[in-house]
Amino acid sequence: MSTHQTVQAAVPASSHQLPEIVQNALDRVESLMLSVVESDVTVLRDASYHILSAGGKRVRPRLVLLAYSAVGGKDPDFATPVAAAVELVHTASVVHDDINDHGIVRRGRPSVNALWGRTFALLTGDFLFTKVYELMAPFKDMNIILADATVALVEGETLQASAVKENNFTREVYYKIIARKTAALFRAAGELGARLAHGQPEQTEALANFGYNVGLAFQIIDDVLDLTGDTEQLGKTAGIDLEQGRGFAAVQEKDVITSLKEKVLQGDAIHEAYEQAQQLVTLAISELDIVPDSDAKTSLIDLAHLIVERSY
Amino acid sequence: MSTHQTVQAAVPASSHQLPEIVQNALDRVESLMLSVVESDVTVLRDASYHILSAGGKRVRPRLVLLAYSAVGGKDPDFATPVAAAVELVHTASVVHDDINDHGIVRRGRPSVNALWGRTFALLTGDFLFTKVYELMAPFKDMNIILADATVALVEGETLQASAVKENNFTREVYYKIIARKTAALFRAAGELGARLAHGQPEQTEALANFGYNVGLAFQIIDDVLDLTGDTEQLGKTAGIDLEQGRGFAAVQEKDVITSLKEKVLQGDAIHEAYEQAQQLVTLAISELDIVPDSDAKTSLIDLAHLIVERSY
Repeated sequence: MSTHQTVQAAVPASSHQLPEIVQNALDRVESLMLSVVESDVTVLRDASYHILSAGGKRVRPRLVLLAYSAVGGKDPDFATPVAAAVELVHTASVVHDDINDHGIVRRGRPSVNALWGRTFALLTGDFLFTKVYELMAPFKDMNIILADATVALVEGETLQASAVKENNFTREVYYKIIARKTAALFRAAGELGARLAHGQPEQTEALANFGYNVGLAFQIIDDVLDLTGDTEQLGKTAGIDLEQGRGFAAVQEKDVITSLKEKVLQGDAIHEAYEQAQQLVTLAISELDIVPDSDAKTSLIDLAHLIVERSY
Repeated sequence: MSTHQTVQAAVPASSHQLPEIVQNALDRVESLMLSVVESDVTVLRDASYHILSAGGKRVRPRLVLLAYSAVGGKDPDFATPVAAAVELVHTASVVHDDINDHGIVRRGRPSVNALWGRTFALLTGDFLFTKVYELMAPFKDMNIILADATVALVEGETLQASAVKENNFTREVYYKIIARKTAALFRAAGELGARLAHGQPEQTEALANFGYNVGLAFQIIDDVLDLTGDTEQLGKTAGIDLEQGRGFAAVQEKDVITSLKEKVLQGDAIHEAYEQAQQLVTLAISELDIVPDSDAKTSLIDLAHLIVERSY
């Protein structure tokens, strides 16, 4: 398999067909996110609008809504606040990441940090992290699932910053990082969607595991694209994970980063990463065996495939 | 009234007598906060321990527990997770403030930012902000009260940063800022405590208003102490609110800050601020008229007085 051909032929995840009822709910997730960040404090509103209206793949809210439908949920609108909350957690983390990583491009636009500066970017991230719980308040027991996943996300980001600082970026550490910083929230997305539809315990567990494995694959591909892509195509500053060590260094060691990037690209690492992501997606899809066939299940399988095949 | 004599004679807020059952619950708030920030990600655990074990006045959890008892709650331990959550919101905001304000001393210790650097301070703040909702998850409808107060806090901080940047620090703007960044969380503390004890609606409202007015007074005194105190006495970097404009300026205008500080100290501003704080405390205490007398009510009144009389 030529992974690079696959990348070239990739279809944006957003183009895959969703059941109409899910697509409509996903549209309402957008308007709900925009309405929940309304504030008379214009900086917070404007910066939140800026990052939210830039779009993004919306993989996580899709996962919430499709998991909900796949286990028999009939009113995806019931799940839209939770889907919006999950995407806000991701958005908040992205705004804070761009402070720590000096990211100047995000979702094809200047980052909040680049436009409003560090102080307001920090506060905008805090604002978004907190709006999550305004949305989640009515969902009672579900709150702990999202809070735990968000704690894991922050822990994963911290492990990553520590590994960069201590120059301890082994494969084992890498998997520990992506499990927390990405897969935990994907897992929560699958679990929350299924729970909201009162899915049977084993189906709920299957959707959680589906999310977890898809999340791992998603992050692996993200990191590959970060290495191989350019900033314009990615819609965010490329090579940033390699470069983020500069926050700790007195000087930017650009040559070191460039040579490291070349080294990774020369070896088998990219090919291996695609193989690993593909295996995780296969594993994720096999989790769905105990979920009855439906349009939503088909869309979940499509989503999993697209995660490996995407080019941004 | 000589406000400066009052300041000199001040007794630390922590020395006032609490009903034993409330003091015991407050002790458990400490251990609960330390246990909830446990993590195998050592930076997050260590930085959280560092800021939490430095102490602090714990005014907000006191308010939760005393409000609970004042409206008839018999088991303050039931309220400890909420009291801990309220203090964690405050602690998270303090960690993030010290990034934005370049604060190097907090609670008599080096700030998280000073010891671990900006990246880890940002992530520690995110960690603490999220742990709030792990604690709050079982409290269902209460979540929205704390989330709303936290949004207000972030809005208040943002208004403050905007006012500094735009050099628009009028008295009206000042009150808008402190209402959100401080009084909203104090209000929530009073309201949450009373609600947890199933207080009658008018008593719950009275405790909320008590918290709000005490919160305004607390912040006014905090700002006066920030102007008049030194760093050692305050346990945090003094003069920081005046100085925080430097984040936006290319150069530090230290002379401007020194002269502004002198200007404020020369005028009637300090005396007026104490008068205002005293009026707010009187107003707060009058809110408690409809609450039956009890040791907890006496402690609330003591707490309100101590807020104006404290020296740190």
